[in-house]
Amino acid sequence: MIRPKKSRLISSFSEWFDSVLRKAEVYDYGRYPVKGMGVWLPYGFQIRKKIIEKIRDLLDETSHEEVLFPLLIPDWMLKKEGEHIRGFEDEVYWITHGGLEELDQKLALRPTSETIITYYESLWYQSYRQLPKKLYQIVSMFRYETKATRALIRLREVTTFKEAHTLHENYYDAERQAREAIEIYKEFFDTLKIPYLISKRPDWDKFAGALYTIAFDTLLPDGKTLQIGTVHHLGQSFPKAFNFKIQLKDGSYDHPWQTSYGISDRVLATLIAIHGDDNGLVLPPSIAPLQVVVVPIIPSNKGIKGDVNKYAIVIVDELNKNGIKVKLDDREDMTPGEKYYYWDSKGVPLRIEIGEREFRENTATIVRRDTLEKRVVNREGLIEEVKVTMKMISQNLYDTAWENMKKRIHRVDTPEEAKQLLNKKEGIVEIPWCGREECALKIMDSIDAKSLGTPWPSEKINGGKCPICGRHAVTVMRYARQY
Amino acid sequence: MIRPKKSRLISSFSEWFDSVLRKAEVYDYGRYPVKGMGVWLPYGFQIRKKIIEKIRDLLDETSHEEVLFPLLIPDWMLKKEGEHIRGFEDEVYWITHGGLEELDQKLALRPTSETIITYYESLWYQSYRQLPKKLYQIVSMFRYETKATRALIRLREVTTFKEAHTLHENYYDAERQAREAIEIYKEFFDTLKIPYLISKRPDWDKFAGALYTIAFDTLLPDGKTLQIGTVHHLGQSFPKAFNFKIQLKDGSYDHPWQTSYGISDRVLATLIAIHGDDNGLVLPPSIAPLQVVVVPIIPSNKGIKGDVNKYAIVIVDELNKNGIKVKLDDREDMTPGEKYYYWDSKGVPLRIEIGEREFRENTATIVRRDTLEKRVVNREGLIEEVKVTMKMISQNLYDTAWENMKKRIHRVDTPEEAKQLLNKKEGIVEIPWCGREECALKIMDSIDAKSLGTPWPSEKINGGKCPICGRHAVTVMRYARQY
Repeated sequence: MIRPKKSRLISSFSEWFDSVLRKAEVYDYGRYPVKGMGVWLPYGFQIRKKIIEKIRDLLDETSHEEVLFPLLIPDWMLKKEGEHIRGFEDEVYWITHGGLEELDQKLALRPTSETIITYYESLWYQSYRQLPKKLYQIVSMFRYETKATRALIRLREVTTFKEAHTLHENYYDAERQAREAIEIYKEFFDTLKIPYLISKRPDWDKFAGALYTIAFDTLLPDGKTLQIGTVHHLGQSFPKAFNFKIQLKDGSYDHPWQTSYGISDRVLATLIAIHGDDNGLVLPPSIAPLQVVVVPIIPSNKGIKGDVNKYAIVIVDELNKNGIKVKLDDREDMTPGEKYYYWDSKGVPLRIEIGEREFRENTATIVRRDTLEKRVVNREGLIEEVKVTMKMISQNLYDTAWENMKKRIHRVDTPEEAKQLLNKKEGIVEIPWCGREECALKIMDSIDAKSLGTPWPSEKINGGKCPICGRHAVTVMRYARQY
Repeated sequence: MIRPKKSRLISSFSEWFDSVLRKAEVYDYGRYPVKGMGVWLPYGFQIRKKIIEKIRDLLDETSHEEVLFPLLIPDWMLKKEGEHIRGFEDEVYWITHGGLEELDQKLALRPTSETIITYYESLWYQSYRQLPKKLYQIVSMFRYETKATRALIRLREVTTFKEAHTLHENYYDAERQAREAIEIYKEFFDTLKIPYLISKRPDWDKFAGALYTIAFDTLLPDGKTLQIGTVHHLGQSFPKAFNFKIQLKDGSYDHPWQTSYGISDRVLATLIAIHGDDNGLVLPPSIAPLQVVVVPIIPSNKGIKGDVNKYAIVIVDELNKNGIKVKLDDREDMTPGEKYYYWDSKGVPLRIEIGEREFRENTATIVRRDTLEKRVVNREGLIEEVKVTMKMISQNLYDTAWENMKKRIHRVDTPEEAKQLLNKKEGIVEIPWCGREECALKIMDSIDAKSLGTPWPSEKINGGKCPICGRHAVTVMRYARQY
């Protein structure tokens, strides 16, 4: 498959990324006097809306109920669960004043909502008969990040935080729920043609307060991984902290069990980073606010200008009637070349050019955004051709993205090999692991990378030794340079 | 038209209102340890979503573009426009700390977004050619209210703030935009069957920083008015404060002109307050998340239980196929009476009861939520009957609500008459006015009410004298007890 040039792939990813956001008018970043915050521009907002619709559909179909909890959480509530607040206390924005008065309790901007939701669950649910309960909200979330901020990847105001919170009568039901969440995220990322690697995070890197965390990571073109989704089995820690019990089937009382799982603006960052090229965005047709743009080309023979335009309008109408999101670009103050550049940068999957020749020969020229391939097709078969080509674009984006990721996952035996690969921006390495934290930490140090965790579902390996202690390896640990 | 009992109308409105929110599971309020904030529950969230879809459609159709600006605004930016900050400084929540560090600039939670939007507009627009520009966002907004808070009516976290902001090359274009905004809001409130009175707010009560404010007020059952929408002609004050100029057609430079207009959670409060009755919510069919509930009644002759259920399911399927949002309530652990109570409280417009008689006679019993009228209809005409009845419900809600408001607007000549009416919770009074602030203020004092403003569009009156100074009246001023 021919693909346009991707000169950015290695060296200048972050510069390229920022320029695409700007050129495609997705998100205005870096010009606000508060670090880590930006503006969703109209076009970016429409893409974001499409993505939100997808995840909302998937959650609604699986009996999740959408709700909206307050943004402001009093300090004592956020601090109820000790491990949790230790994980977040450096990152919380605190409100101390209302008007000119000092507040009698400090209020946090939600960094996540486990505490406030457990507080309400303890008011709402008394019996196993009311469970399981699956709630979710799509909200802004705030973290006073100490690491370098970056548009859509590490923000201080995360504007598209989808957090789900579920409540169960026992451990196993919560575990079953975590698996459902993983399936939902797989389907979600598949829709967006985003490849992922699912890992069980090591204990030293799980969510603050959780029994365990399963994470989705993807690989960006610069060889660094990005965490794009997490699923936590929370055990009973929050209900314990809130002294929240329910009556079980046998009449006894116990703390219920929880899971939580979230995704963020990083989904859109990934969509851009993985599919985009030197010309700008490349959007999967199912997410594109606009799927086809029709550009009439003013013929040298001015006499038939009206005919060419009419021919283009008829095509637009027909596409429209067939449920395709299409727009006619008949602006008079731009050349066709300028229009191509404009729509290419916005990632519109298909362009149809209509000129004198197309009009006379009863054809249309269609251009694929992903491969930039150009083809002349007959007028009669156009609708079918557009539909088929959109499917091919989806498949191509999916295949290419997965292929690019898979070929940069390497199973190696030693930290030395691993380090060489990582230095060449070669993605993710898997090294046999004995299961002991100290060995993994030593490897992280020596290869200058972070641990992603062990494969999920878990994978037993035959043979292989921990390169640090020489013990028999029980699994592999994944390492990568991470965002 | 028969209407169910509305014992709440006079004395216990606020108690009734809170109980409806609770019973219908709309919004959990009053149990959060931070005043003025609550939780949108799943059912309430669905109604809210419908309302958001309506306003979004109306704005998108009129070339407004949806965007999302940061929630946090640095203090110096919020303070740029002097009048504006004086209007808000007692009501702003301030963030002073990130983690354990003190921030080097205080950050406000948006009380409204004129300042931040003007800041960005000054980066984006340079020429009249880019105008007009109409942006909007649907966000949370925060006010540290000093008045008594109340669910959905006076909140500290307003979660459904739709704010539109527009930019124009001259005064008249901005004025035209304000008129467009008024038309949009009229259509919006008409869809919700919410009656309104449009007034030009007096100068002493306009939006902080505006040239003038046009407001939509409605009348709640307890005789108090509630401001449900405002439209501001902002003039050039914000662009002046930000030193923001654009190039005009003649090549010269000037500050552009702005309008802004907003609605809030109060829309839902009004929907509940105006249409609801002693049984709970009454929703207009166009807003109801569920339009019809079908309740099968287990026959005394157990042998045909399966047949009755099947008959009900076929009816549900058929309604569904006809685009009606319908649900079968076949819960086994509730009596039909309990189900009626449950769905009535949630305001589902139509109930269909299917029992042995309906099955044998090939009929269905339909019950209107608004009038509680019951009717048996033939199976063949059921779909048509449901559609027609939903239209009748819409019309009845509209007519009743407007009638209730109109009959409580009184034109009187003296403060004494006005006070008598207001004391009887008789709504809104209009008193001839000479146009001088001091006279209106004296009347407000003497009748213990606030001024809503003068009629919009403006209304000249013939005859009539200002009851305070005796001068010839130029118009009427409206007064009411207000939320």
